[in-house]
Amino acid sequence: MSILEGNMVIAQGGGPTAVINQSLVGAVLEATRYPQIKQIYGALHGVRGLRDGTLVDLRATTHANLEAIAQTPSAALLSTRDKPDAAYCQKLFEQMKARDIRYFFYIGGNDSSETVKIIGEYAQQAAYEMRVVHIPKTIDNDLTVTDHTPGFGSAARFVAQAFAGANLDNRALPGVYLAVIMGRSAGFLTAASALARRYPDDGPHLIYVPEKQFVVDSFLQDVRRVYDQHGRCIIALSEGVWSELDSKGKPKPMIVSIFEQQGQEVPRDSFGHPRLGGGALADTLVSLITEKLQLKRVRGDTFGYLQRSFVGCVSEVDQREAREVGQKAVQFACGLGQSGSVCMRRIGNYVVEYFLETDISKIGGKVRHMPDEWINNAHNDVTPAFLEYARPLIGQIPAFEQLQATPIS
Amino acid sequence: MSILEGNMVIAQGGGPTAVINQSLVGAVLEATRYPQIKQIYGALHGVRGLRDGTLVDLRATTHANLEAIAQTPSAALLSTRDKPDAAYCQKLFEQMKARDIRYFFYIGGNDSSETVKIIGEYAQQAAYEMRVVHIPKTIDNDLTVTDHTPGFGSAARFVAQAFAGANLDNRALPGVYLAVIMGRSAGFLTAASALARRYPDDGPHLIYVPEKQFVVDSFLQDVRRVYDQHGRCIIALSEGVWSELDSKGKPKPMIVSIFEQQGQEVPRDSFGHPRLGGGALADTLVSLITEKLQLKRVRGDTFGYLQRSFVGCVSEVDQREAREVGQKAVQFACGLGQSGSVCMRRIGNYVVEYFLETDISKIGGKVRHMPDEWINNAHNDVTPAFLEYARPLIGQIPAFEQLQATPIS
Repeated sequence: MSILEGNMVIAQGGGPTAVINQSLVGAVLEATRYPQIKQIYGALHGVRGLRDGTLVDLRATTHANLEAIAQTPSAALLSTRDKPDAAYCQKLFEQMKARDIRYFFYIGGNDSSETVKIIGEYAQQAAYEMRVVHIPKTIDNDLTVTDHTPGFGSAARFVAQAFAGANLDNRALPGVYLAVIMGRSAGFLTAASALARRYPDDGPHLIYVPEKQFVVDSFLQDVRRVYDQHGRCIIALSEGVWSELDSKGKPKPMIVSIFEQQGQEVPRDSFGHPRLGGGALADTLVSLITEKLQLKRVRGDTFGYLQRSFVGCVSEVDQREAREVGQKAVQFACGLGQSGSVCMRRIGNYVVEYFLETDISKIGGKVRHMPDEWINNAHNDVTPAFLEYARPLIGQIPAFEQLQATPIS
Repeated sequence: MSILEGNMVIAQGGGPTAVINQSLVGAVLEATRYPQIKQIYGALHGVRGLRDGTLVDLRATTHANLEAIAQTPSAALLSTRDKPDAAYCQKLFEQMKARDIRYFFYIGGNDSSETVKIIGEYAQQAAYEMRVVHIPKTIDNDLTVTDHTPGFGSAARFVAQAFAGANLDNRALPGVYLAVIMGRSAGFLTAASALARRYPDDGPHLIYVPEKQFVVDSFLQDVRRVYDQHGRCIIALSEGVWSELDSKGKPKPMIVSIFEQQGQEVPRDSFGHPRLGGGALADTLVSLITEKLQLKRVRGDTFGYLQRSFVGCVSEVDQREAREVGQKAVQFACGLGQSGSVCMRRIGNYVVEYFLETDISKIGGKVRHMPDEWINNAHNDVTPAFLEYARPLIGQIPAFEQLQATPIS
């Protein structure tokens, strides 16, 4: 194999995570070990920076700044939601040719892996020799092939710590508490709320993921049963839960149904997806529980952006793996001359190894869902198998304890 | 002075904080050093546990469990919102007399300090000799006399870390981001969002507290100006912001105005105060900015319960002071035979000393507000004087850095 010489560019796409810069720094430092890589460019705002030529020189960045960046959440190279079409790709390749870019690394989730696929195909058609590697990240954990995705462990830890606290709060001042977690169609992050349970009466007592239909009547019965048992009830549910299908037979997010019932237009993002953020889902369910079950002290939160970018809540396991996928991406491209998507395979408890999925069409634009074995039969909790899967990923969360004291007669 | 012998009871009231158990453990361990204190009782669910005789024996709790509790957020003895009236007080005193309780310690905020005042007055009328001490805690920092309150530093740190992350997220994917922070009539916690700023372009760029009228038109002009300058805008505002007065000439929380405009009844808590939680305030302002300013990517979060009970975000300064106010409470009561409220006075940068305010009517039921010198003239930010005041209280927050890289021409 002849060694491909040239410049490299790296960029970050999609929603930020707490450890996305670990992958950036891992790749940049690893690249300095390969003499065939001349310039190390960073493109600002993802592929848009490559298209527009807004690049920075990452060889000129100090080691100290890189290591500080690695500890900083959210994309240091800034991000984008752009998905290149043919015209966009043409502009990208004008830049790549003009700047002799032969290595392209893109840190991102589903959309970004699709971008990597498109760029790889375009390069092949154009007979432009280059290595194109997708470095995985997403808090949603919804990439196929890989055991899990960097970024998930830290977001899952945030959710677990938030529920650990909410549970303690709710024990002290009992009532119903529900929180809406990010997750349009995959429930992994919502499921991570279960990792906060330690004592038998700890919440969340009910967990609803978008992999299963959310039946409002069953939900209310569940809440009533838990409340009667514990004198309180804590609920985790995904922003993407749905109780009916749309005209095309696809799950219609409950937030869309709520907006429709109020006669309002549902806000949409630049891809035309309905925006699932905002407090309406939590507020509506709070009203429903208050009215239908006649309960007092019913409260709802929507975790929102906190769960993906909070400074100071990182899984040490996630941090290390995010670093390593960046390093391995460069090794696969430069050491082995391969293109594809870096994946993790679990080979022990808990040990992973890294491999490259060279058929990126298995990942690009695909969505992984919670398997049935990880959701209980009543569709209102996770199974022990999920806990076993997820526990190593969040690292060591702070301990919390109940008071052990003898009652006075 | 003759030494008052008898049993002691300690309890926790009001909303939990991250360090409220430090005060509990500080008081309990300190009490074991005073031979005049026989039994050390904990009352479950605040004064309600004392009224109902649901007490636990805290001398039988292990040191290890106590130290684990100290690290655990939210009231380990559980909490209450009860405010005793005369009949309630009579029941409390039946218990106190029956159990020879001569020392009463109550860890809480404004309402709890009022409870302490009521109990002290009742004891005096009944000529029942006892020491009654209020141990301060509240995330709102709105107790009078004391320099600041235990619990505020950790909640302020949560808010600062949340905004540090939201700012990084918003740099990567620019737009408008606003977050609603707890605070009915005092803006200290919202103001703490400013502690997250490090670089000149860091948000929050705008901060609105309930001490000043929230003028919607000025707000929209502020957002437009910041957006035009930075290409993005981050806003912190208190849940208690108000733009109009009610029929009694008192500030009407904006959330109440919003509910009224929608023809809905505003939910109220057991004191009859309107409930300020839920996502309606953030959602309404997001719609307003989107429509009036024609901006894209406008997002809003409501931090909700996370800010007062998140596991794993504690100020080390706050932790230590919460411990000490508990210890000092017992020293004032047992060593000096005094009753009152434990307060802090700042005597250095940064050093505090503790003293007892024996006239609890100066504190009970009173509310402290942000002084004018800590709010800028435009009423949309805090002043450097506030930052100087608040910075030592949150401890050392995790560092975050921007990438330093040379642009490629």
